Amino acid sequence: MASIKSENVDDFDSILDSHLPANVLSEVKQLLYGSNTRNLGVPDDVLLKAAVEQFDVKIFKFDAKKEELRPPRIVRVGIIQNKIVLPTTDSILSQKNALYNRIESMITAAVMAKVNVICLQEAWNMPFAFCTREKHPWCEFAESAENGPTTKFLQKLSKENRIVIISPILERDECKGDIIWNTAVVIDTDGTVLGKHRKNHIPRVGDFNESTYYMEGNTGHPVFQTAFGKIAINICYGRHHPLNWLMFGLNGAEIVFNPSATIAGLSEPLWSIEARNAAIANGYFTCAINRVGTEVFPNEFTSGDGKPSHKAFGHFYGSSYVAGPDGSRTPGLSRIRDGLLVAEIDLNLCRQVKDVWGFQMTQRLELYAKSLNEVIKPDYEQQIIKSLTGLNL
Amino acid sequence: MASIKSENVDDFDSILDSHLPANVLSEVKQLLYGSNTRNLGVPDDVLLKAAVEQFDVKIFKFDAKKEELRPPRIVRVGIIQNKIVLPTTDSILSQKNALYNRIESMITAAVMAKVNVICLQEAWNMPFAFCTREKHPWCEFAESAENGPTTKFLQKLSKENRIVIISPILERDECKGDIIWNTAVVIDTDGTVLGKHRKNHIPRVGDFNESTYYMEGNTGHPVFQTAFGKIAINICYGRHHPLNWLMFGLNGAEIVFNPSATIAGLSEPLWSIEARNAAIANGYFTCAINRVGTEVFPNEFTSGDGKPSHKAFGHFYGSSYVAGPDGSRTPGLSRIRDGLLVAEIDLNLCRQVKDVWGFQMTQRLELYAKSLNEVIKPDYEQQIIKSLTGLNL
Repeated sequence: MASIKSENVDDFDSILDSHLPANVLSEVKQLLYGSNTRNLGVPDDVLLKAAVEQFDVKIFKFDAKKEELRPPRIVRVGIIQNKIVLPTTDSILSQKNALYNRIESMITAAVMAKVNVICLQEAWNMPFAFCTREKHPWCEFAESAENGPTTKFLQKLSKENRIVIISPILERDECKGDIIWNTAVVIDTDGTVLGKHRKNHIPRVGDFNESTYYMEGNTGHPVFQTAFGKIAINICYGRHHPLNWLMFGLNGAEIVFNPSATIAGLSEPLWSIEARNAAIANGYFTCAINRVGTEVFPNEFTSGDGKPSHKAFGHFYGSSYVAGPDGSRTPGLSRIRDGLLVAEIDLNLCRQVKDVWGFQMTQRLELYAKSLNEVIKPDYEQQIIKSLTGLNL
Repeated sequence: MASIKSENVDDFDSILDSHLPANVLSEVKQLLYGSNTRNLGVPDDVLLKAAVEQFDVKIFKFDAKKEELRPPRIVRVGIIQNKIVLPTTDSILSQKNALYNRIESMITAAVMAKVNVICLQEAWNMPFAFCTREKHPWCEFAESAENGPTTKFLQKLSKENRIVIISPILERDECKGDIIWNTAVVIDTDGTVLGKHRKNHIPRVGDFNESTYYMEGNTGHPVFQTAFGKIAINICYGRHHPLNWLMFGLNGAEIVFNPSATIAGLSEPLWSIEARNAAIANGYFTCAINRVGTEVFPNEFTSGDGKPSHKAFGHFYGSSYVAGPDGSRTPGLSRIRDGLLVAEIDLNLCRQVKDVWGFQMTQRLELYAKSLNEVIKPDYEQQIIKSLTGLNL
C-alpha cells in the first residue's frame, strides 16, 4: 500500500493533456469521465482575478435533454479547495481572519462566474488539527453554527450575492453542554441559516480517531430545498458509507456535497470512485471537495503506524470534482494548488437518468429493510452454504 | 450521452502504455488503479496456448501483509470474457457446443495458470438475446441448474482440475411450472453443484426489459464457503444496487463475482466505478466480467430509443477487471478481444483493510434499518427543510 510522491504530481488531467495526441486524448477522457461534461472556459475577468490571487478556476457544464413540461433547471455549483493561509502557530484569530480573507476572495471569483451554490471544504476555517489529539488550542476553533463569527461572516456574502453557502465547521453546541460536532451550516440566499447537518460517520483511522473530538451526528439525513434545488451534505468519511448516500437520495436530494479532508496514501485510490458511484446509484449530482496542501503543527505526534513522530499529518491532495447521475464527471482540480471548480448543471438530468436506468424502481427496498432488520440482531445467522468437500478455507 | 466509437478502441491500458513516458506512466497508473497490483507476467506455455487460440491472458497479484496468527490465504481467481462463436442463426445445439469448446480451451489455460476459482460471463452459453423480446427460439437455451447439459459439461472440468467454477446461465425451473431465472450455478471442486444464486435485480432499460424473460431472484444473498474462500455472485444489473453488494458483505463474502453483459454508450462510464466501489465499501474483492463483441440476430428489433430497427444490440465492451478491498484494481481486459484475467489474491487483505478503515464498525446499521423501515411506508415523509425565501426550485 505504498503511495506516490504526492507533492510532485500536480494535476492528473494536465499530465494526460500534455502527453496524449488529441484524438487519443479525447477517447481516453471519454473512457475515464464519460462524455457529458464540456469545458466552458473561464471568463477573462475571473481568470485575471484568479491569476493575481493565485488559485485555479475551471468551469464545466453537464447537459440534459430538453423536456416539454419542465423548463431546464440550470444551477451553477461552485466548490472551493484551499490551503490554510497562516502557520498553525499563529493566533487563532489571525488564522481565522486570514482564511476569511482568502475565502472571500475565492467566493468573489465564484460570484463573478455566476455561481449559485458554494460549498467550502470540511472544517474550512481552521487547520485540520485532529491528527494531533490535542484539545488545546484546537477546540477554540469551534463555534456556534447559528451565531458564530464564521457564520456571520458568510451570511453577509450570501445575502449580498443572493447565493447559498455551505459552511462546514467545527460546531460548539453551546446549549447542550458545550459539546462539539462536525457540522455543515447551510446559509440561504437571504443570509439566514436554513439549517445544519452533523457528520453521520466518524473515522477511527490511524491518527484520525475523530471521536476524540466529536461523535456521530444526530441530525439524520436532511435535504435542504433551496432556490437552487434540493441539496444535502455528506461530510467527509460519510462518503465511504453507501447507506448514508442512499438516505440523502431517498429524502429527495438532487445535489449532494461531500466536503472532505483526506491525505495521499490510504484514501487516494478511493477518491475518484466513491462520490461518483454515489451519483450513479442515487440519481443525483455529487460534489467531492478535498482540502489541499500540507499542514505543520507545533508539537510532535505519532500516527499509529510505527513510524517516528512528526509534525505534519500528510499531503491533502485536493482533486475536487463534480459527478453527474449519468456517471459522467468533470476532471479534478489540482493536487497541490488552491482552486475553484464551477459546474453548470441542469437538475432535470436527475429524473431523466432515473427514468432511463430505473435503479430506484428496481432497488427492492422492502427486501433490504427486512434483511437489515435481521442483520442487526445479535444472533443473526449469515446465509452461508458450506462446501461438502471439507476443504473450506 | 453520446458514446465513443467503441469498436475502434481496444485496450485502454495499451493506449496509456504506448503514449506515456515510463515515469509518468507509473504515476498515472497509480492514481488510476492504486498501487497494490503487480503484473506477474504470463508463463510461456499459457502465452503460447492463448496466442494459438487467439485470446488475451493477463496475470496480476494483490499483496497483503504477513500476519502472525493466520497464514496467507492465497487464491487465484480467473475471469473469462468471450464472444459468441457461431452466428445466432445456427442451431441451438451447434451454438452451445461451439461455446463449450471455446470455454474448455480458456478454462484449460486458466488451469495452466494455476487458477482455483473461475467465473464465466452472464448467460455464457448463449447469445444475449433478450434485446429481441422473442421467446422463440431463445428460451430453448434455458436449462436445469442442477442437471442441465451446461452444468454437466462444467462438472467434469471442475472435478478433473479440482477447481470451483461459477456458471451463469438461463435457468429453467422445471419443478416450478417451467419458469425461467437468470442464475449463477456454483460447481465445487468435486464436481458437485454447491448451490445457485438467482439475479436479484432485473433491468428494465431500453431493449432490456429482462423481466420479459425472468423476474427478481428469490435466493437471497448466499455466500458459498469453498476451499478457496467465501464467494458470492452479484449478477449484472445487481451491480448498480449498493444494498445488494452490502448484503453479500454482511453474509461474509470475501470475493464477489459480477458476471455481466453490458454495451458501450449508456453503461461504460459506470463500469469502472461500481464493482470497485463495492470492493471498497464492503471490504472484499470484486471481479467484474463483461462479455465482448457484437451479436447479430436473425430478425429486426427496435430499442425504444427512436432509432430505426436493427439486428445488433450494440458492442459488448469487455474491460473485465478485479478490484481489491483497499481500492486498488487491475487494468482491464480488452474492449474487443476474448480474454482471461487471473488475479492472485491473499484473502487476508479483506480483514486487514477492515481493521485499517473501520467502515464496518462505523456503518450504523441500526440507524439505517430503522430508516429503511420508515422509508418503505407509503406515507413516508422525506426529511426536507424548505427555504423560507419562497424561491424553492
